[in-house]
Amino acid sequence: MESKMEKIISLTKRRGFIYAGSEIYGGLSGTWDYGPLGVLLKNNIKNLWWKKFILDREDIFGLESSILMNTKVWEASGHIKGFSDQLVECKKCRKRFRADLLKTECCPECGGELAEKRQFNTMFKTFIGPIENTASQIYLRPETAQGMFVNFKNTIDSFHPKLPFGFAQIGRAFRNEINPENFLFRIREFEQMEIEYFINPPTGEEWGKLFDYWLKEMHDWLKEIGLKEKNIFNREVGEKDRAHYSKKTIDIDYNYPFGKDELCAIAYRTDFDLKAHKLNYYDEETKKTFIPHVIEPTFGIDRIILALLCEVYDEDEMGGEKRVVLKFNPKLAPIRTAVFPLLANKPKLIEKARKVYKILKPEMTTIWDDIGNIGKRYRRQDEIGTPFCITIDFQTLEDDTVTIRDRDTGKQERIEISKLTKQLKDNILK
Amino acid sequence: MESKMEKIISLTKRRGFIYAGSEIYGGLSGTWDYGPLGVLLKNNIKNLWWKKFILDREDIFGLESSILMNTKVWEASGHIKGFSDQLVECKKCRKRFRADLLKTECCPECGGELAEKRQFNTMFKTFIGPIENTASQIYLRPETAQGMFVNFKNTIDSFHPKLPFGFAQIGRAFRNEINPENFLFRIREFEQMEIEYFINPPTGEEWGKLFDYWLKEMHDWLKEIGLKEKNIFNREVGEKDRAHYSKKTIDIDYNYPFGKDELCAIAYRTDFDLKAHKLNYYDEETKKTFIPHVIEPTFGIDRIILALLCEVYDEDEMGGEKRVVLKFNPKLAPIRTAVFPLLANKPKLIEKARKVYKILKPEMTTIWDDIGNIGKRYRRQDEIGTPFCITIDFQTLEDDTVTIRDRDTGKQERIEISKLTKQLKDNILK
Repeated sequence: MESKMEKIISLTKRRGFIYAGSEIYGGLSGTWDYGPLGVLLKNNIKNLWWKKFILDREDIFGLESSILMNTKVWEASGHIKGFSDQLVECKKCRKRFRADLLKTECCPECGGELAEKRQFNTMFKTFIGPIENTASQIYLRPETAQGMFVNFKNTIDSFHPKLPFGFAQIGRAFRNEINPENFLFRIREFEQMEIEYFINPPTGEEWGKLFDYWLKEMHDWLKEIGLKEKNIFNREVGEKDRAHYSKKTIDIDYNYPFGKDELCAIAYRTDFDLKAHKLNYYDEETKKTFIPHVIEPTFGIDRIILALLCEVYDEDEMGGEKRVVLKFNPKLAPIRTAVFPLLANKPKLIEKARKVYKILKPEMTTIWDDIGNIGKRYRRQDEIGTPFCITIDFQTLEDDTVTIRDRDTGKQERIEISKLTKQLKDNILK
Repeated sequence: MESKMEKIISLTKRRGFIYAGSEIYGGLSGTWDYGPLGVLLKNNIKNLWWKKFILDREDIFGLESSILMNTKVWEASGHIKGFSDQLVECKKCRKRFRADLLKTECCPECGGELAEKRQFNTMFKTFIGPIENTASQIYLRPETAQGMFVNFKNTIDSFHPKLPFGFAQIGRAFRNEINPENFLFRIREFEQMEIEYFINPPTGEEWGKLFDYWLKEMHDWLKEIGLKEKNIFNREVGEKDRAHYSKKTIDIDYNYPFGKDELCAIAYRTDFDLKAHKLNYYDEETKKTFIPHVIEPTFGIDRIILALLCEVYDEDEMGGEKRVVLKFNPKLAPIRTAVFPLLANKPKLIEKARKVYKILKPEMTTIWDDIGNIGKRYRRQDEIGTPFCITIDFQTLEDDTVTIRDRDTGKQERIEISKLTKQLKDNILK
């Protein structure tokens, strides 16, 4: 029997959410491409995040820095020295594994003896300019965070913000994982949504209050997009497992089908980064210069999408028939509404339905479907999570009303066409 | 005297649009970061493009593929063999140059003699997985196009589209330019907005009609975002300068301060790519299998932003005072409106102005400014292109009206607070 993960991978491929990267050439391990519905879902997630954490606030500035950065950034940040995993090789089959994720003491592939562990830097390297040597060697960023720290001075000079304030950025990052695994969970090219929130250097433990505030903001957003509280767990990361820059880290875990594991995280980075880059802040009121501290809430979009798919995937019965349904929060659903003429061979129904379609299409993502019976069309929309289906029937021709069918309850309601857009928008945004 | 380009570079840095990449470490040639206002501008451009070319159409599917792709993609597409520039080195100072852009026959830096030209592949290479050798060598994509071609089969299987139809994608691409130049014009990390439009294999020249249709669509969009017709020129690319896959290419040039040069382009790629990847299309009506041809309209966001900045940058006089103004189309302006209490030391004005600010802020990007006299505040907003400034004065306290000041005409109009949001939105979207 297919596992839940296998079902999700299969559905998201079949319906155009997520495809394996470079699939026609056997793939490229740790890369996934977003299909037409996947892109719409991803954009909805990014837009909700951007609205909550940048547009609706006064204290956060958006940034978009380059993936390619000067190597001195990674020297200063400690990544060249410390951004590595323990790699171990099987002496027999020569396969390589990430040591800390191994559950056995011999090779999980062939049972062979494992060699000594060694450090493996997981930054992807490349060469810039026409000469290939150590001087031209650079790295693809393994996190978007440093792109914000190195723009600290420029942004302060442009906007003169008062503490506390933050930067936020959405963008790709790259980690050369030794063993990519679990679909979108551990991948080599991924997208982050990160915030660096700068605070006055704390006396004692007073940073804790803002840390807790941001932890709550993260939980609020996860709830807003539709992840249930019962599937989300805070896990404080112990000192020896924390990143080199962090004084306190809480991983927010999600209850994936393969077990509880990281979804997003918050770290108190102290003044580590700004100090490393020799940056500081001049307070225009107190006339003092000092190094602010940093609290960093960070999200990986691909893991958010993985958790969401696991959360909303459901198999239930409706009208005595089994169905598969993605119960997305309507705000996130890639397709907001589908328009159906009851029958495909009645020109008057088609014509009327096209009119309704043309009203809705510029306002929200709308699909047209006139193939098969209405029940089949509902099932197709359920499977991609469309929250509302509109049917144009013979009564429509008489009184300009249509039915709206709700994805989760299956209930149908008649409504005037003139009120349709507003009602759908209200239901999507509520 | 500063040139127009120098003024634009300086203004966009000072006001938080664009910063040099990795600047605090001496930069990284050919990379630029977007500051808080730059990100807002860039997002507005992407959203308008996405709406016109994906959301408002029925025949285009959005995709988002990985930057890292299997090397076989680039072998098949011809990039490994052909994606190169002619490189030439100075025998004296050892500097390297792109041969086709040189205007002299000796070294432009030191006058030295130049060595033989040789081909230089401009794809950035890296290594994937824990072993660094030719088998693990991959490339950063030099165009987003191939990410769409390799998803052709998966997308067809998910959506069964009828010809003609297209794919569209926004994403980063990387070219290891020998000599980056002219601010955002020739850079090594950039962002593309590309469409691959698939058509029936044409008999004779009938592809020309769709080629012209797309060329017009591109011009329409360039006009929509505010580029003037008089600064835009079609230039057909001659056979020997065309990319290896193209049967016809038109570059749309813009009249930059440094001369006319490429802004975006449209190419008729024939069936080159799908054939190279051994892909085809089964027509469910005719029951025939064949290889569609492709028309490709392609835009570089960074060049669009460069052209826009050149277009909207203006120095004029208003009320007898010189000013610098960015005359963005209000749809694109990073900040849509600014709210000013007339005086900063009158608590009642402040309180009222905060109320207005809180009405507008959730609806559009809104800035608060209470520093200096109103004239200075107008100048600050003009310089970043804010189309509308709202002032709360003593009359506001009596009759709940405020003034709206128009960036381009300087005219002020009184309006009731209750009508403000709608009027601003109408003016921004018109």
